[in-house]
Amino acid sequence: MPNPSSLALLTDLYQLTMAYTYWKSGTHNKQAVFHLYFRENPFKGGFTIACGLQTAVNFLSRFKFDDDDLRYLATLREGEDRPLFDDAFLKFLGRMKFECDVAAVEEGTVVFPNEPLVRVTGPILQGQLLETPLLNIINFQSLIATKAARVCFAAKGDPVLEFGLRRAQGYDGAVVAARAAYIGGCAATSNVLAGKLYGIPVKGTHAHSWIMSFPTELEAFEEYAKAMPHNCHFLVDTYDTLNGVRNAITVGKKLKAQGKKLLGVRIDSGDLAYLSQQARRMLDEAGFNDTRIVATNDLDETIIESLKDQDAKISVWGVGTKLATCYDQPALGGIYKLSAIKTAGGQWEDKIKLSENQSKTSHPGILQVRRFSKDRKNVADAVFDVRLEGTSEFTIIDPADMTRKKIIPPGLEHEDLLVPVFANGQCVYKSPDIGQMRAHTLESLSRFDQSLKRFINPHAYPVGFERSLYEHKIDLILQARNQNDRAHHR
Amino acid sequence: MPNPSSLALLTDLYQLTMAYTYWKSGTHNKQAVFHLYFRENPFKGGFTIACGLQTAVNFLSRFKFDDDDLRYLATLREGEDRPLFDDAFLKFLGRMKFECDVAAVEEGTVVFPNEPLVRVTGPILQGQLLETPLLNIINFQSLIATKAARVCFAAKGDPVLEFGLRRAQGYDGAVVAARAAYIGGCAATSNVLAGKLYGIPVKGTHAHSWIMSFPTELEAFEEYAKAMPHNCHFLVDTYDTLNGVRNAITVGKKLKAQGKKLLGVRIDSGDLAYLSQQARRMLDEAGFNDTRIVATNDLDETIIESLKDQDAKISVWGVGTKLATCYDQPALGGIYKLSAIKTAGGQWEDKIKLSENQSKTSHPGILQVRRFSKDRKNVADAVFDVRLEGTSEFTIIDPADMTRKKIIPPGLEHEDLLVPVFANGQCVYKSPDIGQMRAHTLESLSRFDQSLKRFINPHAYPVGFERSLYEHKIDLILQARNQNDRAHHR
Repeated sequence: MPNPSSLALLTDLYQLTMAYTYWKSGTHNKQAVFHLYFRENPFKGGFTIACGLQTAVNFLSRFKFDDDDLRYLATLREGEDRPLFDDAFLKFLGRMKFECDVAAVEEGTVVFPNEPLVRVTGPILQGQLLETPLLNIINFQSLIATKAARVCFAAKGDPVLEFGLRRAQGYDGAVVAARAAYIGGCAATSNVLAGKLYGIPVKGTHAHSWIMSFPTELEAFEEYAKAMPHNCHFLVDTYDTLNGVRNAITVGKKLKAQGKKLLGVRIDSGDLAYLSQQARRMLDEAGFNDTRIVATNDLDETIIESLKDQDAKISVWGVGTKLATCYDQPALGGIYKLSAIKTAGGQWEDKIKLSENQSKTSHPGILQVRRFSKDRKNVADAVFDVRLEGTSEFTIIDPADMTRKKIIPPGLEHEDLLVPVFANGQCVYKSPDIGQMRAHTLESLSRFDQSLKRFINPHAYPVGFERSLYEHKIDLILQARNQNDRAHHR
Repeated sequence: MPNPSSLALLTDLYQLTMAYTYWKSGTHNKQAVFHLYFRENPFKGGFTIACGLQTAVNFLSRFKFDDDDLRYLATLREGEDRPLFDDAFLKFLGRMKFECDVAAVEEGTVVFPNEPLVRVTGPILQGQLLETPLLNIINFQSLIATKAARVCFAAKGDPVLEFGLRRAQGYDGAVVAARAAYIGGCAATSNVLAGKLYGIPVKGTHAHSWIMSFPTELEAFEEYAKAMPHNCHFLVDTYDTLNGVRNAITVGKKLKAQGKKLLGVRIDSGDLAYLSQQARRMLDEAGFNDTRIVATNDLDETIIESLKDQDAKISVWGVGTKLATCYDQPALGGIYKLSAIKTAGGQWEDKIKLSENQSKTSHPGILQVRRFSKDRKNVADAVFDVRLEGTSEFTIIDPADMTRKKIIPPGLEHEDLLVPVFANGQCVYKSPDIGQMRAHTLESLSRFDQSLKRFINPHAYPVGFERSLYEHKIDLILQARNQNDRAHHR
């Protein structure tokens, strides 16, 4: 497992070569603004849950190149075996102190495409270096929290347990997935290290190998009940599921006679709808009405929804691979774009990047997201430039279709989603505990209509660019295209 | 980022509750055999590259519960607020020394479904605890190495660069992906931390933001060339790709006049086939025949194959998200199954787990894989029990279709894939360096027919169970089913 002395090198080399060229050209202290955002909700869904901020705060709080990092960078070579970086630059890196302002959306908040999740303002060299690690952290955790929220939505209030460690992508792919899944709504994880690191509840009892290590399944259940009588969930499908339920009932009766409980049975294969109904009937007939039926086996929100529709008698859902790797879409396409630079005259100059595809053109300015609501139900979000002052009325324009406009009526409640996290390199944010983040996800989701959470063709919640920001962006696009056309015909 | 004092808790809770129940029932020192294997090649492909052994060796070499781990475990509770684990058990865990034998397939070796990649022999409690971390390590790295080998196969010898850090799953999802991608055949990574930790070559120059930070693209290229004249790869698509190529040529001519080189241009959007052909023509006409064209933008083996078919003029391929997350199949379904236990009488008793689906029934015994070859081309693999002695002729049976048998003719060259890694808890394996592992992947692949590497309907290389092992497995299945039937009709 990697165990580096510092994580400052957790970045793409081109961030360091750019840092070098900024430094070499004397432009490294230009103030710049970057925004991290994504262009589409994952899983063809109607929403995304922001997640990963505390991890990012920890990273930024320790952001420093140590001697080991600098020694490594000194070994890198460019063409003809020259050192890639000057010694003076490495000394500069070693002395560098983090001095950016960072604002970000809190973990567990529902967010949408084109809304900045993080805004970094500071020396362009520093903002640049943070692109890759911030994307690495926020992309993955937001993806997982969103998937977890979907799975929990399908489970309709039943507990969902995250069981994905064995198939997850790397060890912290697993540990961090357990964290984000909990924030997204899961009740617990199987991952003991995640439990220790983040204070998440951990769950587990036994696997097939426990059963196989005894001559018969019945003996295995009996031995387990002797050793751990207050944690009896029996896995019943090693040889034959319903026979396993029968054996669990046999041992359950002995437990009952001792004043203890058969807490649950787990089914890990076969037709979960049919088997859970049969198991429920058998358990109820034997008087084990409180015994839970836990299901595992490649579950995701679609399968859980289908099992619920079939009236499967499952009360706890263990979700592994499909959650911990976000199997149907294993990456959120978050991006991090330069949007303004302060000129020598002290004025902000807004910046965009063009694209063949207009949805990929970046956004200019220094942005904030305002969420308007009425009676605790959200009405619309406006992305606006913080330099816009004194506007009492917002008109928002759909970035994907400029003919779709919405006037936000005055007098609505509203909150701004980006909150201060670092000021001049110092952390000014007190993170809530992980239980509060999880509660915030539920609260944040509850303020949206159910139609947003549908898996097929979810409702598109109105998110627009405030009118003057939108018009400014169009102006900048036209300017850039004209400049190109002139260059082209030169 | 997680930074735990030990990784012993990187496991599912049920491994620890089973460890506890083994210990409590006095069976924890029973000798047991476990095998790690998978059931299907990923990506609907014809092969898999084994990877992750060195990471597993590092994990096993440090496998020890520290005081912090034990303190955490002491806080866990079962029903009615009782401690989940006895103090005496935690003391036992704290004193426990790793004492298993481990054999494994070396990194970079081509492997197939049902072939054990790792075999663990030792006290059942220890073998059990290793299930989850070994799966976490081997599943992911083998998946990535396989994907990388496929991408490199599509690139037909062109260098492939791994650029996935920003979308990878967690920080070590990225760092370990860079490692496995290099072993699978990539030429370099953008991930500086992976470069430092594993000695992998790192590559990178600049992003769109560098261009955007200057008034014009031409100025941005000129400033870059001044600062880093020996590492000039210009990203040409910030505003308009072919105009960008023109600007790159302008600066390239100045570089040439100074005796320096325009090493490459990078295209990150638009129609890569058309744009690369136009760029190649423009560069050639201007005398830049050696200038490379680097392509990036959501590439994978399928898109690269298609671009090659269209005669795209791309000489270097940067592959990010689709490689680092294995986007089309983000998990390898590796499993880890108990296959034998030593009885009180000192005899091995073989074990299987049944399943509704025969392909999911586990394999009994103490297994090895023998690869037969002729004139350095592989002919067939046999999975056999190491207790099979003195057989000069192997007959193998396809586990998916018992009517398909193959007699391995005598006198072929052969090698056994599982090599000793730990003996009684001591590492006995000297890992090759990462460059040797990468070379081993190429060498291992070269001994198979090209038809195995095809993306659509690849050839199925013959892998079978040695006849007596196969027959033994069928006997055990019938015994287990009979036992169940008896229990059922009791």
